[in-house]
Amino acid sequence: MGFEFASLLGKLGSSRLGTSEYSSIVSMNLFVALLCACIVIGHLLEENRWMNESITALVIGICTGVVILLTSGGTNSHLLVFSEDLFFIYLLPPIIFNAGFQVKKKQFFRNFMTIVLFGAVGTVISFTIISFGAINIFQRMDIGTLELGDFLAIGAIFSATDSVCTLQVLNQDQTPLLYSLVFGEGVVNDATSVVIFNAVQNFDLSQITTAVAFQLIGNFFYLFITSTLLGAGAGLLSAYIIKKLYFGRHSTDREVAIMILMAYLSYMLAELFYLSGILTVFFCGIVMSHYTWHNVTEKSRVTTKHTFATLSFVAELFIFLYVGMDALDIEKWKFVKDTPGTSVEVSAILLGLVLVGRAAFVFPLSFLSNLMKKNQHEKIDFRQQVLIWWAGLMRGAVSMALAYNQFTKLGHTTFRGNAIMITSTITVVLFSTMVFGLITQPLVRLLLPTPKSLTRMISSEPTTPKSFIVPLLGNGQDSEIDLGPHVVRPSSLRMLLSTPSHTVHYYWRKFDNAFMRPVFGGRGFVPFVPGSPTEQSTHHLVEEETS
Amino acid sequence: MGFEFASLLGKLGSSRLGTSEYSSIVSMNLFVALLCACIVIGHLLEENRWMNESITALVIGICTGVVILLTSGGTNSHLLVFSEDLFFIYLLPPIIFNAGFQVKKKQFFRNFMTIVLFGAVGTVISFTIISFGAINIFQRMDIGTLELGDFLAIGAIFSATDSVCTLQVLNQDQTPLLYSLVFGEGVVNDATSVVIFNAVQNFDLSQITTAVAFQLIGNFFYLFITSTLLGAGAGLLSAYIIKKLYFGRHSTDREVAIMILMAYLSYMLAELFYLSGILTVFFCGIVMSHYTWHNVTEKSRVTTKHTFATLSFVAELFIFLYVGMDALDIEKWKFVKDTPGTSVEVSAILLGLVLVGRAAFVFPLSFLSNLMKKNQHEKIDFRQQVLIWWAGLMRGAVSMALAYNQFTKLGHTTFRGNAIMITSTITVVLFSTMVFGLITQPLVRLLLPTPKSLTRMISSEPTTPKSFIVPLLGNGQDSEIDLGPHVVRPSSLRMLLSTPSHTVHYYWRKFDNAFMRPVFGGRGFVPFVPGSPTEQSTHHLVEEETS
Repeated sequence: MGFEFASLLGKLGSSRLGTSEYSSIVSMNLFVALLCACIVIGHLLEENRWMNESITALVIGICTGVVILLTSGGTNSHLLVFSEDLFFIYLLPPIIFNAGFQVKKKQFFRNFMTIVLFGAVGTVISFTIISFGAINIFQRMDIGTLELGDFLAIGAIFSATDSVCTLQVLNQDQTPLLYSLVFGEGVVNDATSVVIFNAVQNFDLSQITTAVAFQLIGNFFYLFITSTLLGAGAGLLSAYIIKKLYFGRHSTDREVAIMILMAYLSYMLAELFYLSGILTVFFCGIVMSHYTWHNVTEKSRVTTKHTFATLSFVAELFIFLYVGMDALDIEKWKFVKDTPGTSVEVSAILLGLVLVGRAAFVFPLSFLSNLMKKNQHEKIDFRQQVLIWWAGLMRGAVSMALAYNQFTKLGHTTFRGNAIMITSTITVVLFSTMVFGLITQPLVRLLLPTPKSLTRMISSEPTTPKSFIVPLLGNGQDSEIDLGPHVVRPSSLRMLLSTPSHTVHYYWRKFDNAFMRPVFGGRGFVPFVPGSPTEQSTHHLVEEETS
Repeated sequence: MGFEFASLLGKLGSSRLGTSEYSSIVSMNLFVALLCACIVIGHLLEENRWMNESITALVIGICTGVVILLTSGGTNSHLLVFSEDLFFIYLLPPIIFNAGFQVKKKQFFRNFMTIVLFGAVGTVISFTIISFGAINIFQRMDIGTLELGDFLAIGAIFSATDSVCTLQVLNQDQTPLLYSLVFGEGVVNDATSVVIFNAVQNFDLSQITTAVAFQLIGNFFYLFITSTLLGAGAGLLSAYIIKKLYFGRHSTDREVAIMILMAYLSYMLAELFYLSGILTVFFCGIVMSHYTWHNVTEKSRVTTKHTFATLSFVAELFIFLYVGMDALDIEKWKFVKDTPGTSVEVSAILLGLVLVGRAAFVFPLSFLSNLMKKNQHEKIDFRQQVLIWWAGLMRGAVSMALAYNQFTKLGHTTFRGNAIMITSTITVVLFSTMVFGLITQPLVRLLLPTPKSLTRMISSEPTTPKSFIVPLLGNGQDSEIDLGPHVVRPSSLRMLLSTPSHTVHYYWRKFDNAFMRPVFGGRGFVPFVPGSPTEQSTHHLVEEETS
């Protein structure tokens, strides 16, 4: 009806937008309206704590797909074809940047070694198991022609965790350790999967020599270090520019604009140099929240904080809505409709491999990580290990994008084997996001029955005698103010012997205060008048959510 | 160098972004970096009050175009081809929405009749004169084949004013009357130019009957009213949703997201129904700032205010950078390089017609408008008329977009006449923006030598005996608090006799308070605890810039 009305008006109206296809305007309208619906419905379902916005968006996306499928007479199901570019260039950067910007840096850096262990070694283990399983099982089944490269790609596709979904399912305040481990792993996982995917597509894997293996490992470290440095560099540059020029004098909007543009530039530069944009923009977010954010005006702080969160929120909804709609893309399902059993079987096998592949590294690596730590309260207990295993099972848009890259040409596929892999990927993504995602929250409440006290234990607040050292670990965001001059600091030698990782932090803080902050600003380097009530209370307003 | 380095790394790196063209990533990097450069350089030039950011962006764009032209050996000058879709779908909406959101509503509605007179009747006069001049002058020159429809299109193209440039050149606080007149005219001008452009392209103009003329006038009113209602409706819907659901309870980001999405949806719906998206999103901005903005949390207020301003700021920079780069598009200039004299001549004639066409309606219509007003201080004096004439001379991206629509097919042209019109449009846009734009500020200072006192006079602050009525005109944003209960309100009959337009405002306020605010919220309807220092001072923080 709306469409007829529009075409009727069309005769009267302008033809200004004539060059753009009218159908794309219809799609955009519907898409934006659906995003609004997701927000409203997600809000209404907020009371129901099992539900989250991703799943709402997925369900709405699927329902819309069904409606479009029915109205178009079964020929078409999606408003927009899934595009890797849209995903990697526009939707992913704000999500990962915001995660870096809002992450609790204390937790993240304290668990840095464990995170890298999980993200790098863990992903390799998971990749190996899934590839191996796929080769052994699928070759005996009748699912069309798949080569060795395809099986290895399957391993890479299904070991790419979905950082976005983790953000939605776990709560940073409720389970800080789990959140930082699973999410941090997801970020490192991206760098690893870039290396693995590249290796699968470019190297001749039929003859793996030690030289090739070393090249791959070197490649990983090269990617990891350059990506991190690029992100940190972009963040520091933005801090320096804003501190030096003091944009706020003229307009707070310039500060906000330059922060957004520099963050985006860091991601695009990483993509330009074939680095891991996700790692780059994540570290750019961390550096920006540590330095740049403290150099801008109070109003810019409130604005950037919420703008980044909103952008990330909308991009997440967009992705889930998009994946939900694309799930019913009729072209791929045509190939499997004769043999629905095979598709279900393949999906089930893949889900099983994902479960096994993840278990195969979470438990052994947690054991290893616990060996390195002396303090009982820093170790990962068994229930936490189960949760880490479970919370990282979701596969999302990254898997979809990789699968489309490997098994289709410009979104189309003609081989039966490829079509089955695409539909199975969609099935695994939908199933893992909806079922595993829905169960995670209840599981957290089941395994960590008193989250309040457990959180306190994990985040090592008082109760232990080390309480006077703990503030030194802070990144300056949530602890500096508590640290009055009356606290007696232990000698650095004693600290180094007892708690090596804490000492690193202590020296980082000394270095930060002596060299970094005078150049790049950061907390306390902006003129701050404690007497002014406006400044003070907005400061409070901002701090409330940060800490 | 960077490119070789990148391709070298390419062999090592990921092929994940393989489907997107690598060159588009290079372009985006360069473009984002140039935007950052514009902000920094614009900030450094801020002290020089003759300069503004648009012109900086234009100059940087032209310089980049020259560099690309030289490095590519004269084959290519732009990073991105000018696209109407990009302009009308992504860049224009945030600019116009923000203008509506931040406009001083008091000034705007008080001068509403004058604005509509200028925007509608004035545009028609300007269109007639430019078309007539073009027919008479260009037909005697050797500039290829142009038909009647082309000449009328030229009239429409060059009577479309550049609202974006007006925002940059005039200062709302310094010259509120001029700003609201020229900018308001620009917004109404858009609705008119939609109707005219449509008429030129669809109607058989060789035989204009009174029936056709009435149809056109009816069409204009239909467009104007439906677009306004759609915008106001979208704004009210957002206010109602946010008031009813109170998103802020759970997350302030949802409020921000829904405001942005609803505003964008209103624009896209207008385009869907072939209405004037500019008018729609402008009124949506006005309604949102009057109702919705007051229903959200304090943090959301700060965030939305600065987010909209930042988006608009970046979109403006983007447009000017883009137009600057596109100005050197070599394909169009090839046609005119044999006869550079003709192109210069055509551009000069068009500039002359623009000057005459605008003078032909500003002075007579100002006279008419002055006749309708009784109070001396509300009339537009001659120096102000000169400034209104001058400040609306800029032609910008809208003219470019219309010219591309009329004279090219997908950005390419093969006829000499068409190519000359394109290059002349570019010349007129660049010349008017840079020369007229640069001269406007000095001209304002020359003609209004004591802006402080004049501003006060124009905005009718105290000094006149009507001072106790004036607060009633406020939209509740800048006057309500001053209005203590001790102010004696005059009887409505006396008011109606003495100041009819003020009385309309008074009754609007009564209606607003009695019916609109209880449903849609607005200032004062959010629970507000005056005792809480946090709330109060953030409120102050927000108010500072609003008022």
